[in-house]
Amino acid sequence: MPQDTNPPTLRVGMVGYAFMGAAHSLAWRTVGRVFDPPLRPELTALCGRDAGAVRAAADRLGWAHTETDWRALVERDDIDLVDVCTPGDSHARIAVAALDAGKHVLCEKPLANSVEEAEAMVAAAERARHRGQQAMVGFNYRRTPALALARRLVAQGRLGTLRQLRIGYLQDWLTDPDHPLTWRLRREAAGSGALGDLGAHAVDLAQHLSGQRVVGVSGRTHTFVTERPLPDGSGATGAVTVDDAAQFTARLEGGALASVEVSRVAAGRKNALTVELYGDRGALTFDLERLNELRYHDHTLDPAEAGFRRIQVTEPTHPYLEGWWPPGHGLGYEHTFTHQARDLLDHLAKGNRPSPSFEDGLQVQRVLAAVEESAASNSVHTPV
Amino acid sequence: MPQDTNPPTLRVGMVGYAFMGAAHSLAWRTVGRVFDPPLRPELTALCGRDAGAVRAAADRLGWAHTETDWRALVERDDIDLVDVCTPGDSHARIAVAALDAGKHVLCEKPLANSVEEAEAMVAAAERARHRGQQAMVGFNYRRTPALALARRLVAQGRLGTLRQLRIGYLQDWLTDPDHPLTWRLRREAAGSGALGDLGAHAVDLAQHLSGQRVVGVSGRTHTFVTERPLPDGSGATGAVTVDDAAQFTARLEGGALASVEVSRVAAGRKNALTVELYGDRGALTFDLERLNELRYHDHTLDPAEAGFRRIQVTEPTHPYLEGWWPPGHGLGYEHTFTHQARDLLDHLAKGNRPSPSFEDGLQVQRVLAAVEESAASNSVHTPV
Amino acid sequence: MPQDTNPPTLRVGMVGYAFMGAAHSLAWRTVGRVFDPPLRPELTALCGRDAGAVRAAADRLGWAHTETDWRALVERDDIDLVDVCTPGDSHARIAVAALDAGKHVLCEKPLANSVEEAEAMVAAAERARHRGQQAMVGFNYRRTPALALARRLVAQGRLGTLRQLRIGYLQDWLTDPDHPLTWRLRREAAGSGALGDLGAHAVDLAQHLSGQRVVGVSGRTHTFVTERPLPDGSGATGAVTVDDAAQFTARLEGGALASVEVSRVAAGRKNALTVELYGDRGALTFDLERLNELRYHDHTLDPAEAGFRRIQVTEPTHPYLEGWWPPGHGLGYEHTFTHQARDLLDHLAKGNRPSPSFEDGLQVQRVLAAVEESAASNSVHTPV
Amino acid sequence: MPQDTNPPTLRVGMVGYAFMGAAHSLAWRTVGRVFDPPLRPELTALCGRDAGAVRAAADRLGWAHTETDWRALVERDDIDLVDVCTPGDSHARIAVAALDAGKHVLCEKPLANSVEEAEAMVAAAERARHRGQQAMVGFNYRRTPALALARRLVAQGRLGTLRQLRIGYLQDWLTDPDHPLTWRLRREAAGSGALGDLGAHAVDLAQHLSGQRVVGVSGRTHTFVTERPLPDGSGATGAVTVDDAAQFTARLEGGALASVEVSRVAAGRKNALTVELYGDRGALTFDLERLNELRYHDHTLDPAEAGFRRIQVTEPTHPYLEGWWPPGHGLGYEHTFTHQARDLLDHLAKGNRPSPSFEDGLQVQRVLAAVEESAASNSVHTPV
Repeated sequence: MPQDTNPPTLRVGMVGYAFMGAAHSLAWRTVGRVFDPPLRPELTALCGRDAGAVRAAADRLGWAHTETDWRALVERDDIDLVDVCTPGDSHARIAVAALDAGKHVLCEKPLANSVEEAEAMVAAAERARHRGQQAMVGFNYRRTPALALARRLVAQGRLGTLRQLRIGYLQDWLTDPDHPLTWRLRREAAGSGALGDLGAHAVDLAQHLSGQRVVGVSGRTHTFVTERPLPDGSGATGAVTVDDAAQFTARLEGGALASVEVSRVAAGRKNALTVELYGDRGALTFDLERLNELRYHDHTLDPAEAGFRRIQVTEPTHPYLEGWWPPGHGLGYEHTFTHQARDLLDHLAKGNRPSPSFEDGLQVQRVLAAVEESAASNSVHTPV
Repeated sequence: MPQDTNPPTLRVGMVGYAFMGAAHSLAWRTVGRVFDPPLRPELTALCGRDAGAVRAAADRLGWAHTETDWRALVERDDIDLVDVCTPGDSHARIAVAALDAGKHVLCEKPLANSVEEAEAMVAAAERARHRGQQAMVGFNYRRTPALALARRLVAQGRLGTLRQLRIGYLQDWLTDPDHPLTWRLRREAAGSGALGDLGAHAVDLAQHLSGQRVVGVSGRTHTFVTERPLPDGSGATGAVTVDDAAQFTARLEGGALASVEVSRVAAGRKNALTVELYGDRGALTFDLERLNELRYHDHTLDPAEAGFRRIQVTEPTHPYLEGWWPPGHGLGYEHTFTHQARDLLDHLAKGNRPSPSFEDGLQVQRVLAAVEESAASNSVHTPV
Repeated sequence: MPQDTNPPTLRVGMVGYAFMGAAHSLAWRTVGRVFDPPLRPELTALCGRDAGAVRAAADRLGWAHTETDWRALVERDDIDLVDVCTPGDSHARIAVAALDAGKHVLCEKPLANSVEEAEAMVAAAERARHRGQQAMVGFNYRRTPALALARRLVAQGRLGTLRQLRIGYLQDWLTDPDHPLTWRLRREAAGSGALGDLGAHAVDLAQHLSGQRVVGVSGRTHTFVTERPLPDGSGATGAVTVDDAAQFTARLEGGALASVEVSRVAAGRKNALTVELYGDRGALTFDLERLNELRYHDHTLDPAEAGFRRIQVTEPTHPYLEGWWPPGHGLGYEHTFTHQARDLLDHLAKGNRPSPSFEDGLQVQRVLAAVEESAASNSVHTPV
Repeated sequence: MPQDTNPPTLRVGMVGYAFMGAAHSLAWRTVGRVFDPPLRPELTALCGRDAGAVRAAADRLGWAHTETDWRALVERDDIDLVDVCTPGDSHARIAVAALDAGKHVLCEKPLANSVEEAEAMVAAAERARHRGQQAMVGFNYRRTPALALARRLVAQGRLGTLRQLRIGYLQDWLTDPDHPLTWRLRREAAGSGALGDLGAHAVDLAQHLSGQRVVGVSGRTHTFVTERPLPDGSGATGAVTVDDAAQFTARLEGGALASVEVSRVAAGRKNALTVELYGDRGALTFDLERLNELRYHDHTLDPAEAGFRRIQVTEPTHPYLEGWWPPGHGLGYEHTFTHQARDLLDHLAKGNRPSPSFEDGLQVQRVLAAVEESAASNSVHTPV
């Protein structure tokens, strides 16, 4: 129910207005219409390099002002929080500058393109926290209600001791070798390919859902299409410098095994983030392509009546559902950002440290770096 | 892409702010942020009987002004369209008054509680159309991308001649006999029970997807729980005067058979609107609990390779998807209202008659009335 | 485990060796290799009209002797049981003669092509029972482990009071109008079309699973393809005199509603016998195309953790599974006949009356006849 | 249709009569009743160490004679083929002796407990082939119709160039730490745990379906429950000396990546052999728990109409289906052994070398050994 008094505002400035920018904009606009956050976000200023394009985007997405230089944005007095929605190679410098300028920061994932950058961001977040500003990294899938329920069930011990995690994140938009060589396919801009883009989600979820850190990995990456046409339409091609797919096995600090497979060339898979968790008392499975469902097997039941049950995570008692629709009326992808906004607003109002923190983002980065090292070492055994 | 110039505004007044009101509010707020409608809606005034409650709802949902009498709302000069989100027993009088006052009208389904009311609404819509105002009834599920794709495939002849439609709409929120006797369970307010609430969607979809009218029905309704506790907490009970479930078979004007089963006591079903369409060249199935998917069987393929394929209706070439996310990033329930708003704004800007029209709503009402008559006639054959 | 002593034999004579005959033959051969039945069946004699063809079939299917006249078969001294696997129009005369000749009888479904024939068969079974012979009708799907488990759960009260049964039996082998006019499409041989062939299973399951008789029906049948090529390859066509599809709603004696839809022109459905049972404490669903699975919703659980669970009906404690494989190693279609044979052998050894009895078959016939009457009366209400 | 003349017989002797022995017995009994094999198998002699138990098993399973020493069995003059269904530690000595005694051999998988044993078996098979005897290893899942169809589609190029294979084989029968320490949990008898038992199938399928050998692996194995109660009921416990689960990534000679995860402690998974194949023109998926289905995505279709289609592999044109039932009437687990028998009989009659050969079995063994080596080398990278 609405509050008696209007909550104070939180003035947001956002850098970037492509896919993530659009999703975040809707979230900031919607959060106060569905939930009762203790702060009401204002879409104060949007930043992008092209003045005309950013103005048009601001009109469409509902931002009051525009900037063409992120340095100007982070210095504005009328901004409380900077939302970083740019490619990964600029995360570190924008986020650090914003934190040092006294802003809260929400930064898209992966946190950075390297462990070094991520460490610098953590240091900046640490400095800022002492001054009262907070930093959060945007692993939005934690806020999928079904995965939030999964976390709750694991934390309640419903799965007993976790033994195996099996995670896939498969897409197919690079299946066709004629797909152009965009920034996401160049190492200098994107850091890595499927590994950083999709694997970052997989690693964050593995650690978040289990409550355990990855302590050892063994991996493999591969680029199936090594040359692609340049996006300028010239007909010339350039080298793809990131992976198309990556696989790795991992051990968690609590003793569980994990396996992860990510790909952008898995024909027929559109956004198939699949999670399987097996413990000695139960199991859970999830597929992002059916994000309103969680499957739960209670291994303590009579085997004659046991089986994976399809829980529609749309009950009012499910995480984040109190603001939405009656049971069975499912949510969509962008709702995860609205939930992220709600939680961040709660944390900021209470002065709490938000989660996932930049430290969490750094830990993910370290795991991904270890996978790349392992892949480079190529420690393969040959059947003889 | 955004337009060069800002589109003209459409000033909206809405009556009712419960479930449907909240969904419509989000839709009016969001439509211009995702699509480029030729009119930009303004959330001008919200109407409800309790001044405090409507003010709080307006704050939360983002409406500028409030009214406590719908008659005042429909007379306001700063309103171009009245959006009727009240229970069915007031649809006719509000919609007719609004149309006669020179407003466009969007009215929630079912159009009315009786054929007579619906006829009066059609007459008012007819009068208004001559003056340039339009009327539309809110069968929002037509705007589910998967069902819009289904309609496209049927219209393209991909199913050949339709032979059988099998539709279920099963919910379970009345399974428990202790669920209180709310207005939805009283005939004078709700008109009917599962039949009018859920059956109206089923009939509209049967006719819309097939492009054929229902020409004969044979039905049955039943109330399993005939007494329920009054919602006042007094412990007293009252009689349930609407159906809990209804079943009917139907013949369409093109020769297809249809069967419909609706229920609010189907344990385990939350919002299971399931549609099966069988033709002589193919088949389609849909389940609202997985609204981003359509299953299509192409019967012209080699049987060794044929089968129902799960199309994720999230491609940019799918209906309504151009404004949303990359493939596999699914939409939710309330997006259907955003799509409804987009289509209505398009129709209004072009001066077109929107679809589904009040005539469509009246036709649904006539089918439901025939089902009730058939059920009352109880023409059952006994096995002997 | 095997018995110490070899069980006595039961000498079987079978009439018919097409689809059903092949399935029954495998069942008689296999039952004693998997279970420990108290009688060991011997495949003594196979009967068919064409001497060469029946000899070849006997060699292949493993029958010792052959006959070309069913009258000779039922008179043989070395036969204890006659297994009737012919088209429906000869069921009554063969079964009655066999019973009157002092044989046990297993008769394929539907029991007969008319209520009158079925009544005569029941009378013969009654006479035979007083002499110690038994009669059973082959509703084999009762012996699908998943449906046997469903019956067990319903009988245990796990669904509470049954409210709705929704049954479909959809196939597509007549979708193509060029499919020839075989005996199954002529009323004089087959009795009826989808209604008798598929509807008989649906009605038997509705009554068996619920434990309640159908007491009133309202139905519709339709023939979409009214002329088909004769099977002689002459190019001439003949009239189809049975239904392609049928729909009916029904009321059970315990107050539940049922709806049934059967079709042989539902493109893409191969053998889709789907059963949904909804009660006030739970629900069950089944699909014959996935016959090793039963889905169960326990409505007494916390809604936050409830959902349809997929029980793999392959545990040793599941019906019929004690003789088969470890969990997850599924069974196939013909196993239902092996289970039928096991149960029949048990009943015969104990002198029990087998179930489903000829009375059960007659009751199904009466329901189907009532559906046909209802369809002929065409009591349809027209929307006006 | 049956042949005019009876085919010559093939006299079979089998060693072992537990799970595999029962399945093979049914297959030998059934193959000639469903198909028209060029040789008709006779169940001549069954061998087991306990005279009473083997006699009882022979009676039940339908074998004419018994032996209590496999050496006697392989020397019998009335045996043409020896079927080895014992634990892995005796495969090599029985198979080699049988081949050297001039018998054909069918040997259950995995071929042996070590590469050395497997090499000796291949040498014996080579010797025997020159004398006209054949050897085959029982990777029965190749004969699942859906996987045989998968192989056909891959071989036809329907998937284009294979890029990724993702295979899981998950069971849960060792989830409970109180499950006793049977021979399958001791290295000296079983060779390895999930890796050899389940991983052997996974590796064989990876290589068979792709038509490519594994050329490098990187793996990990783990034993979650290291002590279990002895099966003698004494209450004492013993050390588990095999793995509960194994994971590995692999590279195929054609450039594809593969990942494999196997487990016997994956709660809720009964027999979940799941196969995913991704190529640049299409994809296939399979789940042994639904063995009559194959899912196929044709990536060359318009994305607006593409999606994984569920092919029910029950059409008469599907592999092995010509002998079975009409479409939609599914097969079960043990049918794979019947198909294996049919193919073996065909090969023997033609004097062809059967597939999978002992060389194929050896190659699988080499891959598994490389996984164990890799796991032992523990080349893990630690996130820092």
